[in-house]
Amino acid sequence: MNETIINILEKPELDNPIFIEALPGIGHVGKLVADHIIEELNGTKWVEIYCPEFPPQVLVNEDGVIEPMINELYYLKDVGESKQDYIFLVGNTQALSPEGQYGLCSQILDLVEDYNISKIFTLGGLATGQPVESAKVFGSVTDIELIDELKDIGVTIRSADGGIIGASGLLLGLGKLRGIDGVCLMGETPGYFIDAEAAEALLLILLKLTDLVVDIEKLEERAEETRKMITKAQQMEQEMMQRTNMSPAEDDLRYIG
Amino acid sequence: MNETIINILEKPELDNPIFIEALPGIGHVGKLVADHIIEELNGTKWVEIYCPEFPPQVLVNEDGVIEPMINELYYLKDVGESKQDYIFLVGNTQALSPEGQYGLCSQILDLVEDYNISKIFTLGGLATGQPVESAKVFGSVTDIELIDELKDIGVTIRSADGGIIGASGLLLGLGKLRGIDGVCLMGETPGYFIDAEAAEALLLILLKLTDLVVDIEKLEERAEETRKMITKAQQMEQEMMQRTNMSPAEDDLRYIG
Amino acid sequence: MNETIINILEKPELDNPIFIEALPGIGHVGKLVADHIIEELNGTKWVEIYCPEFPPQVLVNEDGVIEPMINELYYLKDVGESKQDYIFLVGNTQALSPEGQYGLCSQILDLVEDYNISKIFTLGGLATGQPVESAKVFGSVTDIELIDELKDIGVTIRSADGGIIGASGLLLGLGKLRGIDGVCLMGETPGYFIDAEAAEALLLILLKLTDLVVDIEKLEERAEETRKMITKAQQMEQEMMQRTNMSPAEDDLRYIG
Amino acid sequence: MNETIINILEKPELDNPIFIEALPGIGHVGKLVADHIIEELNGTKWVEIYCPEFPPQVLVNEDGVIEPMINELYYLKDVGESKQDYIFLVGNTQALSPEGQYGLCSQILDLVEDYNISKIFTLGGLATGQPVESAKVFGSVTDIELIDELKDIGVTIRSADGGIIGASGLLLGLGKLRGIDGVCLMGETPGYFIDAEAAEALLLILLKLTDLVVDIEKLEERAEETRKMITKAQQMEQEMMQRTNMSPAEDDLRYIG
Repeated sequence: MNETIINILEKPELDNPIFIEALPGIGHVGKLVADHIIEELNGTKWVEIYCPEFPPQVLVNEDGVIEPMINELYYLKDVGESKQDYIFLVGNTQALSPEGQYGLCSQILDLVEDYNISKIFTLGGLATGQPVESAKVFGSVTDIELIDELKDIGVTIRSADGGIIGASGLLLGLGKLRGIDGVCLMGETPGYFIDAEAAEALLLILLKLTDLVVDIEKLEERAEETRKMITKAQQMEQEMMQRTNMSPAEDDLRYIG
Repeated sequence: MNETIINILEKPELDNPIFIEALPGIGHVGKLVADHIIEELNGTKWVEIYCPEFPPQVLVNEDGVIEPMINELYYLKDVGESKQDYIFLVGNTQALSPEGQYGLCSQILDLVEDYNISKIFTLGGLATGQPVESAKVFGSVTDIELIDELKDIGVTIRSADGGIIGASGLLLGLGKLRGIDGVCLMGETPGYFIDAEAAEALLLILLKLTDLVVDIEKLEERAEETRKMITKAQQMEQEMMQRTNMSPAEDDLRYIG
Repeated sequence: MNETIINILEKPELDNPIFIEALPGIGHVGKLVADHIIEELNGTKWVEIYCPEFPPQVLVNEDGVIEPMINELYYLKDVGESKQDYIFLVGNTQALSPEGQYGLCSQILDLVEDYNISKIFTLGGLATGQPVESAKVFGSVTDIELIDELKDIGVTIRSADGGIIGASGLLLGLGKLRGIDGVCLMGETPGYFIDAEAAEALLLILLKLTDLVVDIEKLEERAEETRKMITKAQQMEQEMMQRTNMSPAEDDLRYIG
Repeated sequence: MNETIINILEKPELDNPIFIEALPGIGHVGKLVADHIIEELNGTKWVEIYCPEFPPQVLVNEDGVIEPMINELYYLKDVGESKQDYIFLVGNTQALSPEGQYGLCSQILDLVEDYNISKIFTLGGLATGQPVESAKVFGSVTDIELIDELKDIGVTIRSADGGIIGASGLLLGLGKLRGIDGVCLMGETPGYFIDAEAAEALLLILLKLTDLVVDIEKLEERAEETRKMITKAQQMEQEMMQRTNMSPAEDDLRYIG
């Protein structure tokens, strides 16, 4: 496996779909939203992606069964009154290296661009590092024309306060170069736990911006499950790294000139 | 040497062998087990692997003779009543980068898959970071059907508490994509020393799961040798790194495999 | 996007242009100078460069509009009495990895060498880590013959006190191998804020070395804008990194260019 | 420059030369020795090597002139009574990444192997982290047959106390795979300064092992020059990194699964 493997399980007929990215990131905000929508609306998985730039590991699920690192595309067809189609990019990881990120995001855009996607939404969290009373939703756009619609529904424009790192930023940037409109929506979150409240705020905004209709009742419940699993996993990993006697990999030697 | 070199010393005739991975990792638990089995049962080395993604260094053995970084395949033929064949993957290192790990694990699977391997066992340690009274053995699987057999012989199912990093995880994940059943067995260990007790617990479980019959007497002895060598080596390296100008950067990968 | 994309918007006719590099670096000193000259003298953008070795992210401008990571070439034609032509390399980032830096700097040199560039100036900051009373300008050269001209106008020769990291160094080094004269000019700066005073000192020296005539009045104003934007951005990023789960690893490259 | 550039300036006729590596490393011990021999015996440079895996920077010499990162081969012909030929590998850097190290060391071995090299010596320092009263010289070998000769002249065999990192280890390891005898000699050094005493001890051992005859008088003098230059350079770099407001490169993102 020296190259990215893209398994296309099905070739759906989609009409100018909206493309929504929600890979793992800060507070798992975006991932919670997208996983919830896909489950509530019975999204159909049609692409599996395995990339040699993903972390070289597997995850273990609650049954003790291992899961390869993966990105997946789901679709929803004829949603709401406008019969809008959607493609979702979800998964359990992102590529690690810059060239891995650029390469994979480009390949995914190649794939979905064949369907004439009308717009990209990337979903994430914006970490404040402090307790958040009532989670705001921040937005950045690829074109200034897209700002007003966001403001009208209560999105706070995030401007000049740093970059958007990873697929949520890169898909918009590469999409912009291809002339595709894009919006990044970020739920405000302390950032150090799985944040269902930020996800709820983000979901409500996304529903206003689209024709998606989703029950939010089970969102907190799902967040709770994710929370248990991920937090425990992270504790374990940190302990392992700090206490193991396997010395950290010694690549990247620095020599004095 | 821009590509992995795979020296095939011999092409054994093997009948649906079981493939067992035990590259260096936490507490050297897996490595102790596999090296012990190979030595006790006179395993035959048939493949040597050199990879440009290994750490750019050599090791020095107790005689002052340098050893290149290497992965090796050994085989055992007609073991036990069932005449089961085995392939072991052992060595003194793992690839450092994600693409190195994905690439090498895939190449190794290509190689052993030609022999129609019936199952993969990957052996490692699970670090608790604390003293362990009586070492448990943890297990994760590629298929939920494999759980019961493990539980029946006293393996604790490791679920939803983090990933399995390095070759022990990746070989199972990539194997699963190829439809090969796999089990990761992890000996519970504090994690900060060469742990012969964890290795013994792990070995006893492995013997129950296979037709392997191995005397465990010399395991502690071998562990002691390894312990002396590795601990000293790591002390030296840490001292060197902290006090000299050649301070390797900490990398991402810290193998749990 | 597995390879660098070089969009040539226009093929200007240039006569032995001087090539000036000013990518982001310490104190943003070089970038302030070049951006100021380009704006004051109405430079024309003729090349856009996107590289998969850039950081995998986008920046957000003051309007909330995202900007891809980019390097750009601008030109100025028939400047001053001598009708000197200029090419500027500016942008919002540098390639991250060694091979990314070597590859991209070489590609850019290939591009500008077609125009028979007569000389390379690379502009940067030299961080003292302490308050600077009156910013000196330091210089290093590709050929000892170039030293006297620098000394005559008050440049302090920077000798044997470390390397020049990133594009500011590499373009000179690779240029030297191609037989192109080059000078690195570095404005003395504490290094931990956007330093308009260092930029002004550097600009005044550059004006003496070339036929460029530029009003410096607006330099401080522009610096103030940059300062607001960048400082805020960096604070955010640092907070995010420290408090969230998405903590980018510290890498080797810290640009001095 | 996407690939290593090897400029062959001259193709000397050499008869089973001894190959001596002394790239920068701990305490600059090896480099001091080799630079001294080359200068005292008027070695001839015949190969220049530029590699895109070198650090993306240049160095500045004492005159303010920049020097590209480089590895070089020198040769000495008909040295001493035995008319022994020698090839030296020296330079101001080493490749940074594992694949850079493996690739470059292999290319260099390809080059010198054409001359039927009879043996490889790699020269380095062994850092104790503590003051050293009288510098010992440690040795490791590719073949146990080489041990006795070392012991006889007072070399302490370094065994089982860690790896040999970088070109000094890798050239021996890769050479061993090609059937070439090799010895790594390491001067004992505190490791945190340019150590002329360790270099002198190492040089004296090397003279015993070869037919080289070199005056050691100027060694301390050369060390003093190197010391001034490098120490100052390192201070500068550390200060710059700690105090600069250029945020460290953000490659190598870590995402939570």
